[in-house]
Amino acid sequence: MELLENRIRKDGIVKAGNVLKVDSFLNHQIDIELLNEIGKEFKRIFGNEGITKILTVEASGIAIAAIVAQYFNVPVVFAKKSQSINLDGSVYQTKIESFTHKRVYDVIVSKKYLSPDDRILVVDDFLANGCAADGLIDIIKESGATLVGVGIIIEKGFQDGGKRLRERGVRVESLAIVDSMNDETGEITFRH
Amino acid sequence: MELLENRIRKDGIVKAGNVLKVDSFLNHQIDIELLNEIGKEFKRIFGNEGITKILTVEASGIAIAAIVAQYFNVPVVFAKKSQSINLDGSVYQTKIESFTHKRVYDVIVSKKYLSPDDRILVVDDFLANGCAADGLIDIIKESGATLVGVGIIIEKGFQDGGKRLRERGVRVESLAIVDSMNDETGEITFRH
Repeated sequence: MELLENRIRKDGIVKAGNVLKVDSFLNHQIDIELLNEIGKEFKRIFGNEGITKILTVEASGIAIAAIVAQYFNVPVVFAKKSQSINLDGSVYQTKIESFTHKRVYDVIVSKKYLSPDDRILVVDDFLANGCAADGLIDIIKESGATLVGVGIIIEKGFQDGGKRLRERGVRVESLAIVDSMNDETGEITFRH
Repeated sequence: MELLENRIRKDGIVKAGNVLKVDSFLNHQIDIELLNEIGKEFKRIFGNEGITKILTVEASGIAIAAIVAQYFNVPVVFAKKSQSINLDGSVYQTKIESFTHKRVYDVIVSKKYLSPDDRILVVDDFLANGCAADGLIDIIKESGATLVGVGIIIEKGFQDGGKRLRERGVRVESLAIVDSMNDETGEITFRH
């Protein structure tokens, strides 16, 4: 998606340790107009799949999911980071390791909001090692719902999450795939 | 807002300890169509105030802020819950006590995304004791930006946050104000 790649080139900041900061338009300050263009693009890609729900994980996926959901006329469900294991059986739960924060979160989704009839599109801002997507896919499987695909804004193509998910047969559609980036020059190379 | 009150009556669940669960349409599963009606209502209320940014705090405020922002054609900034105090001076920070989770969070906003020229609308799902609003208002003051008002979806009128903020001269507009609720009968009384 050219508009997105141009925006990442213009406003993304490459930091040491393969960190790409997009705080100014995607996950701290959020450019809602850009998200609407992203919503239209996901609608173009997944529009004929009978999607019934958009699933993401807090916090940075939520704005994306909310705007994207408008193009599908469906609700959003976001997985919550949990302080403690829930023992009452009313939730699906899994563990997600954050690349950015170097820690493991328990995340939960209430059983009330995913059902075997649901056809789910997972959306998130980044795909790096794929742990967040893995966790959400685990939850979808446990619920009996159908995973239609995973819509990602920025995939780090030099980490193995996307490759691994695609090899498992998951449809992953990333609007920008970064093949390499250089924190000294700031240069970012996209896959086409 | 009648549509909202009806929805709270229909799908809200009153629990002991003055807890009102709106997980099925507002802060776990999210009804995006309802949020669009809420966005239109905030636009009607605050539309002539020259708002330049919508500010909220993760996580449940983010979807609301994203949808509301579309009606103002402005970006969203969300305050992040921080693991650790940031000492490099690049962020505004404050403490927010969560009524739901009974704990205190450090929240931060990058100094890059609030400026003295900004006219800010704070939005959030709930106003109870007002701690989240207090924290965001502290950050706005520190940045030199102008606080235009606070837009709340559900105010717990029997807790003192709204009263206290209004007495300080803050314009608080709540789309539904719950005056009382009964966890035995499930009855909810709204202020009109």
